[in-house]
Amino acid sequence: MEKRALLYEGKAKKVYSTDEPTIVWIEYKDSATAFNGEKKSEIAGKGRLNNEITSLIFSKLEQEGIPSHFVKRISETEQLVKKVDIIPLETVVRNVAAGSFSKRLGIQEGTPLSKPLVEFYFKNDELGDPLIIDDHIYELQLATPEEVALLKEKALQVNDVLTQWFADLGVQLIDFKLEFGKDTSGTVLLADEISPDTCRLWDMETKEKLDKDVFRRDLGSLTDAYENIFARIASK
Amino acid sequence: MEKRALLYEGKAKKVYSTDEPTIVWIEYKDSATAFNGEKKSEIAGKGRLNNEITSLIFSKLEQEGIPSHFVKRISETEQLVKKVDIIPLETVVRNVAAGSFSKRLGIQEGTPLSKPLVEFYFKNDELGDPLIIDDHIYELQLATPEEVALLKEKALQVNDVLTQWFADLGVQLIDFKLEFGKDTSGTVLLADEISPDTCRLWDMETKEKLDKDVFRRDLGSLTDAYENIFARIASK
Repeated sequence: MEKRALLYEGKAKKVYSTDEPTIVWIEYKDSATAFNGEKKSEIAGKGRLNNEITSLIFSKLEQEGIPSHFVKRISETEQLVKKVDIIPLETVVRNVAAGSFSKRLGIQEGTPLSKPLVEFYFKNDELGDPLIIDDHIYELQLATPEEVALLKEKALQVNDVLTQWFADLGVQLIDFKLEFGKDTSGTVLLADEISPDTCRLWDMETKEKLDKDVFRRDLGSLTDAYENIFARIASK
Repeated sequence: MEKRALLYEGKAKKVYSTDEPTIVWIEYKDSATAFNGEKKSEIAGKGRLNNEITSLIFSKLEQEGIPSHFVKRISETEQLVKKVDIIPLETVVRNVAAGSFSKRLGIQEGTPLSKPLVEFYFKNDELGDPLIIDDHIYELQLATPEEVALLKEKALQVNDVLTQWFADLGVQLIDFKLEFGKDTSGTVLLADEISPDTCRLWDMETKEKLDKDVFRRDLGSLTDAYENIFARIASK
């Protein structure tokens, strides 16, 4: 496989075309951003850790019958994935109240929810990625009702697998964000990344945060937290 | 009917008990507030206009087969209503993009929606009445799925009646907010008020705003706008 033109550069990744039209080449960057880009930093090792962790998680999900855009890891910071058109929705699954959910509803961070809950956010930097309801999605024609149902179903499947897997590693999966895309044949596929950038992960015993909140809230070394997660999932 | 103790004083109304335990006495105030109470004013005549307009609208809805807590108008600024426990949800119906909807989704104010859309906001001043999804409602136990379905159905029925009625008066019903409560027998009833405080109403020809946006956005005389609406609905 040959790396060709830079197609897109986001906050955390670069995407290149390859000699295979249905495959793109992803390079994970060391940039850390939060609060819609208001807080920024370069953190050596972050790109490597998110690439390694995402590769292991997508491989695990594949084994459990949940395919994604992931094709293969090609280096410490690079992976090949299927080319998809990203559906402009952030699909968030929550098991425990935290972050914006706690603030919005006045539920103390750390409160377990009665059951996993799926939210959609409109992926739009200019608008600050607002929470939206299903009828907003249809009005904006971001996805059809059938696609929304599929996204919810897949998100809850991912939650089932990852909650159990992380629990076996002594980590509580608090919440996480997924993105989905449509491949060149129109099939909806799990895409983007699943990493401590996109999940809240707490040590089950100590409740220590092992995710991007370390960066958002200045709680210590981001790479120490991400290395901790990487070491646990690489051990399985 | 005898007016007794003050039970509750809100931003726009006072509620008194009566000698009939299932009935309360409402007094509309002249206070105008916006932006979660950040903007405040006393506007002589506002209480009278909202009481008169709400009385006419609830009577119209009753005639059209949509009952509410409204019992009867008893003076220019007072009405009797059935005592209800308010469900802490603001049920918003939108026909045309405006206000927070336009800002949230980046849709220009005045853009017609493809069909009427119902949103729920958590009625909680401290949290700023946030938009919530159905699953938030269930997690917070604000209403059951059956009640949410009923609220949506009733809200759309109200929209059908009022859209047509206002159109006949040369007024476009852009959006509005409803509140519902449970009466002493547990029946869900339309409650609170329906007035230019809780609706966006635009003159169909001139697009002039005839609602609380006149106050929110300093567009002129609030009482002139509300008198205009009152005159039109009183003429029918």
